Amino acid sequence: MGIARAAAFAPASMGNYGVAFDVIGVAFAEPGDVISAEWRDQPGAIIASIEGDGGRLPLDPAQNTATVAANSLLRHLGLRRGVSLALQKGLPLGSGLGSSAASAVAAVVAINALAGEPLSREELLPACLDGEALISGYHPDNAGPSLLGGITLITGAHLTEIRRMPVPDNLRFALVTPDLSVSTAAARALLPKTVPLRAMVAQTAAVARLVDALHRGDLEAMAEAMERDGIIEPARSSLIPLLAEARAAAKRAGALNLVISGAGPTLAAVCAGDETAGRVAAALGALYDGAGIGCMARATSVSAEGARVLAVE
Amino acid sequence: MGIARAAAFAPASMGNYGVAFDVIGVAFAEPGDVISAEWRDQPGAIIASIEGDGGRLPLDPAQNTATVAANSLLRHLGLRRGVSLALQKGLPLGSGLGSSAASAVAAVVAINALAGEPLSREELLPACLDGEALISGYHPDNAGPSLLGGITLITGAHLTEIRRMPVPDNLRFALVTPDLSVSTAAARALLPKTVPLRAMVAQTAAVARLVDALHRGDLEAMAEAMERDGIIEPARSSLIPLLAEARAAAKRAGALNLVISGAGPTLAAVCAGDETAGRVAAALGALYDGAGIGCMARATSVSAEGARVLAVE
Repeated sequence: MGIARAAAFAPASMGNYGVAFDVIGVAFAEPGDVISAEWRDQPGAIIASIEGDGGRLPLDPAQNTATVAANSLLRHLGLRRGVSLALQKGLPLGSGLGSSAASAVAAVVAINALAGEPLSREELLPACLDGEALISGYHPDNAGPSLLGGITLITGAHLTEIRRMPVPDNLRFALVTPDLSVSTAAARALLPKTVPLRAMVAQTAAVARLVDALHRGDLEAMAEAMERDGIIEPARSSLIPLLAEARAAAKRAGALNLVISGAGPTLAAVCAGDETAGRVAAALGALYDGAGIGCMARATSVSAEGARVLAVE
Repeated sequence: MGIARAAAFAPASMGNYGVAFDVIGVAFAEPGDVISAEWRDQPGAIIASIEGDGGRLPLDPAQNTATVAANSLLRHLGLRRGVSLALQKGLPLGSGLGSSAASAVAAVVAINALAGEPLSREELLPACLDGEALISGYHPDNAGPSLLGGITLITGAHLTEIRRMPVPDNLRFALVTPDLSVSTAAARALLPKTVPLRAMVAQTAAVARLVDALHRGDLEAMAEAMERDGIIEPARSSLIPLLAEARAAAKRAGALNLVISGAGPTLAAVCAGDETAGRVAAALGALYDGAGIGCMARATSVSAEGARVLAVE
């Protein structure tokens, strides 16, 4: 009978690497989603259960990124059987950490394991993107890093447009997610439709410095370039309470920068080393707690490998 | 008495490295300008002679980038004597090859040699920029590469914002300059004041790919990324006769791409190796000749060292 059940983990990710809006993404070691997949006789994917979402995610297979991605993969593989998915949400919804992408990626990696690994990680990307498209359009800024790991340069949806970038030594992140939800659609609606040519030149220059710094392994230059965002962050800063205070607190605690993760409200601060990242996470947590805003704060690192199979039975 | 006369060469440059508008520049091994400087007792810089400009350049020290840059350096050095400059224009005016920057750079490097090299090449940049500002604003996209050589990433006017990039092996250029003059001001006037956000993202993605390719020494990926310009070239293409035909002819002859050099009308085609560059230059020359448009075509390489002192007496 072969494999009856397979489980996979897919990590959180930051789709906007600071100034590199829709161009560079990164996978975090944690948190992440876990999906367990089992065969069922009927065709198509269904959701058996969801834990950790506070009852907010849809069970309807047409409305959940995990099942949409799963069905895309089942079609691609030409499978007549279907799958039943059990979803453990490890990362918060609408938080700027690529929640919908992580669910799509975990589903697809679990089903690929269930089917005996017919496809490579890279070949799984189209199905992940089909799932992600349900929420935020056909763009691999979160699904790419969550699936493949590392820091990824993403210039289009085709695989040849996704390149792994070198990861600077000692790169750590402090993340804080204040207790409020920001929808990607709402955050996108705040963006300007057009930008002045001068601002575009400044943005391209900053992205060029960022890519240069990544290749040189220069953590400080990388962090500095990430913060040179004159377009996206100013448009969205109103969505994030205490953004300026958080940046100041993070830097006082030793962070090299602080940027909005994706559409927010998660904030990510680049730090050199575990100790600093822990201190910065604590400072960010204390800031929001002190202001009466609940939050989750943690220190993490880059997920080098991205999504992974946890168990096969 | 010390040195009485010094001469310096400053190379042509391309300020827009394809899609990297105002962000990456490159110095060409040739052509270039030569300036010879002599002391004079009166303060300030004057122009004794100009050759090779067809009588078009102003002799007025306030109107020529060479003397404006020279006076900036004389002031910075606190010199009471002045200089007399003899200028040999080796590169065509208004051609997109950084003519005004080359004159400013050659003047400054010659005067620094005359004064016994008190400043490093890098320290000469502000004076060069003061000269260049007369024509095209305070931006080092041409003066930086002409002074320092190589491929330079330029994200601001301060020296810390100028970084040398790795030069891919075997990188050569075929240049063709049709016989028509394009003023930088006119070419800038054609640019859109604002760009759609989507176009900005595509432009930053292309520049990121370009910087990544330079670091990986991937000549083909570099050339391909340079051509991904959805903003600047479309706005200026009407200034360049036979642009599409030139691109097709260059590629038929083996070029990896073709872009407008600076504000044009010079076109630059990236080629792998001398033989291909020569063949492409010949094809571009034949195209314009056949259309009854006079032109200069040549094959060249990257100037690794930039401006240099030719003689000191």
